[in-house]
Amino acid sequence: MNIGIIGLGLIGGCLGLDFKALGHRVYGVARRAATVEAAIALQIADEASTDLSLLAPCDVVFICTPIATIVPMVAQLASILAPKTPITDVGSVKAAIVEAAAKHWPYFVGGHPMSGKSEAGLAAAEPHIFKARPYVITPITGTDLQAAQLVESLATQLGSKIYHCTPEDHDRAVAWISHLPVMISASLIQAALQESDSKVLTLAQQLASSGFRDTSRVGGGNPELGLMMAQYNQMEVLRALKRYQKEIELTISQVENSSWDAIAQKLESTSAGRSQFVSE
Amino acid sequence: MNIGIIGLGLIGGCLGLDFKALGHRVYGVARRAATVEAAIALQIADEASTDLSLLAPCDVVFICTPIATIVPMVAQLASILAPKTPITDVGSVKAAIVEAAAKHWPYFVGGHPMSGKSEAGLAAAEPHIFKARPYVITPITGTDLQAAQLVESLATQLGSKIYHCTPEDHDRAVAWISHLPVMISASLIQAALQESDSKVLTLAQQLASSGFRDTSRVGGGNPELGLMMAQYNQMEVLRALKRYQKEIELTISQVENSSWDAIAQKLESTSAGRSQFVSE
Repeated sequence: MNIGIIGLGLIGGCLGLDFKALGHRVYGVARRAATVEAAIALQIADEASTDLSLLAPCDVVFICTPIATIVPMVAQLASILAPKTPITDVGSVKAAIVEAAAKHWPYFVGGHPMSGKSEAGLAAAEPHIFKARPYVITPITGTDLQAAQLVESLATQLGSKIYHCTPEDHDRAVAWISHLPVMISASLIQAALQESDSKVLTLAQQLASSGFRDTSRVGGGNPELGLMMAQYNQMEVLRALKRYQKEIELTISQVENSSWDAIAQKLESTSAGRSQFVSE
Repeated sequence: MNIGIIGLGLIGGCLGLDFKALGHRVYGVARRAATVEAAIALQIADEASTDLSLLAPCDVVFICTPIATIVPMVAQLASILAPKTPITDVGSVKAAIVEAAAKHWPYFVGGHPMSGKSEAGLAAAEPHIFKARPYVITPITGTDLQAAQLVESLATQLGSKIYHCTPEDHDRAVAWISHLPVMISASLIQAALQESDSKVLTLAQQLASSGFRDTSRVGGGNPELGLMMAQYNQMEVLRALKRYQKEIELTISQVENSSWDAIAQKLESTSAGRSQFVSE
């Protein structure tokens, strides 16, 4: 199958590696000529160009560019691809993208492979990062069934675990497990940095270890990515933040009133509850 | 040197292993006979007993029991040890302990070796966990200088990085880097568990990965430890929680008002600021 990939960063690069290894012919498009050259040199694409028209012979196209550019890209592809060619994306929010993209192209299928690495960029690409990881597909009323099936079969070839849901359910779920953590983790760093007693701040910086390291990790990550989550998943991030704020308020009143039984109960429940989300 | 260790859990066990390896004679005391036997079998102590009077010949005693029992233990040791024998502890809060312990024994020196493992208990003990890790010593007015120097020299033998500060500065610093993270991380789990749409909750549980794993780790840890931090460092935990709450409120208003520049700026600042605390 001829597979187009637009945006040759980490995810686009990893998709290219895996699809080529699976015997597909990969057509890569990037904004910069240097990336195009690197994609060929790293054997991530069979053909590559800065020109979208390279993708004319593709049977399916994966858009792996930043969220803001996905819908405009679908609009541009509409005049390049053969009729009914499925287009999918890998964006980490779905509602803001899927409705708008479907207006330009009914063969658009929203997708979100939930894999990643801390490093970004094509040079960090490696095989098999999608294996055993979730791949969420978010069809809406009017999504072409065959297009959705093709995207699902390719995600299955990558070894991913497939989930189907509405774009809204996806965005609400990832607000909890991905976008809210970024906001609360960043707020920890920001609050600590504002400690007014400079010798305490210095001491905190000297003593910080695994607890602070883990809790602050995603809040100290890629700022552009964090901003995009808030921008494109605004309502769900807000909803999660407001519920979270209530939990913080409750904790404050419990500590203030020495409600140790209530705090003990809460920590018991979170200790047990965490395993419903992650295994270690 | 004859070194007494009371409380043969993870930290007591690790101290015993290292001090024996350094050529000291280790006297261990535990509450349960089975722990006493295990300490001998695992070569963590040269002599061990459930009876505190075993420690009579010790030149220094490390109290490694839960926070609530440290001060009563100092009071008991006062009638057993030779005059001027230094006593120290390894508790993760200091103000609540040091003043009270000093009243029973002026040769008490507050200490906090900041090492640990996710596993608890004697069986998880291993050598060298204090090496290159912070060891905070918190003398107060009236702390015997020689006692403090002896504790410091033993911590140095463990390979630790020594820090000195007041109990109050210690407690304020660890509120930021250790106790607040537990509370905000637990609140994340608790808020997510309260998602009222059960299919979204299920989806969130299926999709949760490294971001949620890291941010929720300390809030899903040992509930007794989390409770003790809040109980014995109540004022500083409260102060940190209230400042943190302001950050969450600010974030909510920024997302609500689409203040993307402000959010971008905050995430840039936390991305850079995190490296002042931890290196990766």
